[in-house]
Amino acid sequence: MPAYAVGHKVPDSDSICSAIALSYLKTAIGEDVRPARLGELSPETLFILDKFGLEQPELKLTFADTAGIYILDHSDRIQGPDDIDDCTVLGIIDHHKLGDITTATPLEIWVRPVGCTNTIIKMMYDFHNVEIPKNIAGAMMCAILSDTVIFKSPTCTTADIKCVEALAEIAGIEDYKALGMEMFTVKSSVQGTPVRELVMRDFKDFNMNDNLVGIGQLEVIDLALFDDMKAELHADLQAVKAEGNRHTVMLLLTDIMQEGSELLVVSDDSSIVEQAYNTKLTDGKAWLPGVMSRKKQVVPPLQNTFA
Amino acid sequence: MPAYAVGHKVPDSDSICSAIALSYLKTAIGEDVRPARLGELSPETLFILDKFGLEQPELKLTFADTAGIYILDHSDRIQGPDDIDDCTVLGIIDHHKLGDITTATPLEIWVRPVGCTNTIIKMMYDFHNVEIPKNIAGAMMCAILSDTVIFKSPTCTTADIKCVEALAEIAGIEDYKALGMEMFTVKSSVQGTPVRELVMRDFKDFNMNDNLVGIGQLEVIDLALFDDMKAELHADLQAVKAEGNRHTVMLLLTDIMQEGSELLVVSDDSSIVEQAYNTKLTDGKAWLPGVMSRKKQVVPPLQNTFA
Repeated sequence: MPAYAVGHKVPDSDSICSAIALSYLKTAIGEDVRPARLGELSPETLFILDKFGLEQPELKLTFADTAGIYILDHSDRIQGPDDIDDCTVLGIIDHHKLGDITTATPLEIWVRPVGCTNTIIKMMYDFHNVEIPKNIAGAMMCAILSDTVIFKSPTCTTADIKCVEALAEIAGIEDYKALGMEMFTVKSSVQGTPVRELVMRDFKDFNMNDNLVGIGQLEVIDLALFDDMKAELHADLQAVKAEGNRHTVMLLLTDIMQEGSELLVVSDDSSIVEQAYNTKLTDGKAWLPGVMSRKKQVVPPLQNTFA
Repeated sequence: MPAYAVGHKVPDSDSICSAIALSYLKTAIGEDVRPARLGELSPETLFILDKFGLEQPELKLTFADTAGIYILDHSDRIQGPDDIDDCTVLGIIDHHKLGDITTATPLEIWVRPVGCTNTIIKMMYDFHNVEIPKNIAGAMMCAILSDTVIFKSPTCTTADIKCVEALAEIAGIEDYKALGMEMFTVKSSVQGTPVRELVMRDFKDFNMNDNLVGIGQLEVIDLALFDDMKAELHADLQAVKAEGNRHTVMLLLTDIMQEGSELLVVSDDSSIVEQAYNTKLTDGKAWLPGVMSRKKQVVPPLQNTFA
């Protein structure tokens, strides 16, 4: 019976590429571990897999009947498989705050305050002295460029930059920044995509002092792409809030060139959001200069305000 | 303002030696981290510090006013500082199941299914390429010999054995098994020690399905040392149970030569204990052959039975 490596719901490139990379590593050291995904892939992730000739991980939603799971890119139960409480968690590899997953037995945890899970997976390859295949190195590199917004995010660390440089060499990619821009251009193709798909593309729920808060993020190379869509997006946030009984739903429209985010908010109490970011909402919107990271700049202040 | 490295309440040798070793490592890489302890040291730990000329860490019970804490050898809030919810947890280094500590910000976590926290601290020294001072290497080695019961515990892994061998070489110790036996002889000097001190020497509380369960352990080279004491120990377990409003209190008397433990139990429902270990209690006692590890052989079955 195999074990599985699985990232969070609404998988992003980090969740998918780390699942592929960890499975290869574990298999190389003698563990039967396979990559899985909890949902459909984004255009960005499909671009990466296509670029490096990698297959989509198996779509698999429950894991109680497996040898166990390696949890990637999260440690909150709400973001993991629905049957996580019935699973054996063999390990956690993550770069976020520590969530509420607990276990009944000892396990392996690699959590570091770096920009991307794949940077930590690279440390694991180094620790086990296993060579990274060229195509997996390329995918890992793209995941780091995605999570760190080509090193522009405040979450980006020296370790992430060094890791990208090392992976680029393994993958034989000379201009990784050009590849990063190509990837973000794919990510920016929002025209013609159903609004709900955009809201959900990179959406995470958080439990903040017993209030359910959903936060989505879209990173584009030009915020003007959303000019004709904001009313529709706002209306859909309202629907997402109602459907999930959420206290607050927010969408970050991040402009990676201007280096800031427009925040779209629907909330039972917008004053909490205004207080958290020291801003005033106009028609449920605010521009947050310099804010690019949900994890580092958006979640902690809101969590503190709720507490 | 410094940060602190701190192990669990009722500190054992692993908690103390890892606090000293991690503080030295962090200081070497430019972080101001100091060792602390949450309680008095056991004769075994005092023997180790004396042997290698190391000072006792500072006795410090609250950390909210510090730069943050590195949590060692546990990840359960109940085992940490009382004000842990008001502290910034900078990191966790541990070898137990994952407990209920959560954080509001990203951090560093090194958890491995090995026999001792100090085995993981050695990996951290290797990762950062920092040389371990001779005396700290000796203390780390003793902590691993203690936690793994000189490699006899089922929690002992190849990594622990290799780590002890490497640390013995750094510390210049030829016969580390002899030193381990000397240490366990010190640990076995129970005569003349107040009963409460024995019960509490290595005592941990666990939250099992909302029931408070306290489990102490004493490891000796000959179980006969307790022959005249068992009635007194049992009476004190009863008192500890009442004072702490606990559902169950157990004391493991582990014979490291016979490789098994006598279990002393007081409980609101002894049948749960009998079911967990598939045994019958006689006068609140049972011999559990082969059982040497609280973490691996005692806590999980009881937790499963409570669940």
